[in-house]
Amino acid sequence: MLSPEIQTHRKPGYPINPIIHNRWSPRAMTGEEMSDAELMPLFEAARWAPSSYNGQPWRFLYAKRNTPNWDLFYNLMVDVNKQWTKNASVLLVVISHKVFEKNNKPSVTHSYDTGSAWMSLALEGSSRGYVVHGMQGFDYEKARKDLQIPDEYQVEAMAAIGKRAPKESLPPEIQEKEFPSDRKPLNTIIFEGKFH
Amino acid sequence: MLSPEIQTHRKPGYPINPIIHNRWSPRAMTGEEMSDAELMPLFEAARWAPSSYNGQPWRFLYAKRNTPNWDLFYNLMVDVNKQWTKNASVLLVVISHKVFEKNNKPSVTHSYDTGSAWMSLALEGSSRGYVVHGMQGFDYEKARKDLQIPDEYQVEAMAAIGKRAPKESLPPEIQEKEFPSDRKPLNTIIFEGKFH
Repeated sequence: MLSPEIQTHRKPGYPINPIIHNRWSPRAMTGEEMSDAELMPLFEAARWAPSSYNGQPWRFLYAKRNTPNWDLFYNLMVDVNKQWTKNASVLLVVISHKVFEKNNKPSVTHSYDTGSAWMSLALEGSSRGYVVHGMQGFDYEKARKDLQIPDEYQVEAMAAIGKRAPKESLPPEIQEKEFPSDRKPLNTIIFEGKFH
Repeated sequence: MLSPEIQTHRKPGYPINPIIHNRWSPRAMTGEEMSDAELMPLFEAARWAPSSYNGQPWRFLYAKRNTPNWDLFYNLMVDVNKQWTKNASVLLVVISHKVFEKNNKPSVTHSYDTGSAWMSLALEGSSRGYVVHGMQGFDYEKARKDLQIPDEYQVEAMAAIGKRAPKESLPPEIQEKEFPSDRKPLNTIIFEGKFH
């Protein structure tokens, strides 16, 4: 159930769901297109995330490769991300609604809730064998301007989605990073009681 | 693979992973304790979430029932949440590090990334049959003060974790809400190209 690369690189201290254990953020993609039948289940997964008062503040702007929208999204990224996302099937800009739709009151959890929807999307995509790789290496202000994102939405992050390719397809300096990353020890992220 | 309550209430427009499809936020809990063997896999799942530069900004403060920390966490919540979380096994306060540890530079995705870790925790717990229910109905400033959370961390949300009980165990006005909630149509949360 675990992929060989995960078995090599990731040793959880407690057993966890394979869908979570197997997810990581590869960069090597084939440059193929994705159909709506392939892509939409990822958004559908995001849709069912939890949020404060079920406000669902997440919005996903996307561009498919070989469409007129592609350059608009591709040109937002820093060069180091352009190098490998050129082979993505889809580029995403994830934004969140800073106010509740029903009463226009400020939300305190719009980014946090949108992160939960993003994780749902990433897990669905990863479990289907796709690359789903989040990025903050892009021009946030340019994204707002070029994609006409209203002020009451916050730009959160970008992501690349695509079909996996062998790591040898990447430039050497990126190839070096093409393995599942490790994590801090569990006891550094949990605290029983007060912060300490 | 889908629970009967989910089959009744949730009809995704595209097939998605059962672990995502089945997750919802019940409130009825038994009031039993949870052992570390039961609880730790949820934190372990959170640990493997993706984050910008793998910075892992998420931190989880928690209190187990029948321990001296319980009241400290329980007293943060608004009355409507106290009514049902009194039967939780564990209360969480989720916080995020606003700066990168390695260089102290501000993070733009600390809340979003922490939301992804929260979703991982929620999915792991839900798939194990536990209640994992997020909340923003608590006093954020009191949380910071009482739990001695440093300024460079942001208080994101709380959550209750516990063992499921029949909905009939809830007070009538809460019982009414004890079913999986629906979502907005998919076409209202995704936009191909610019925001529109």
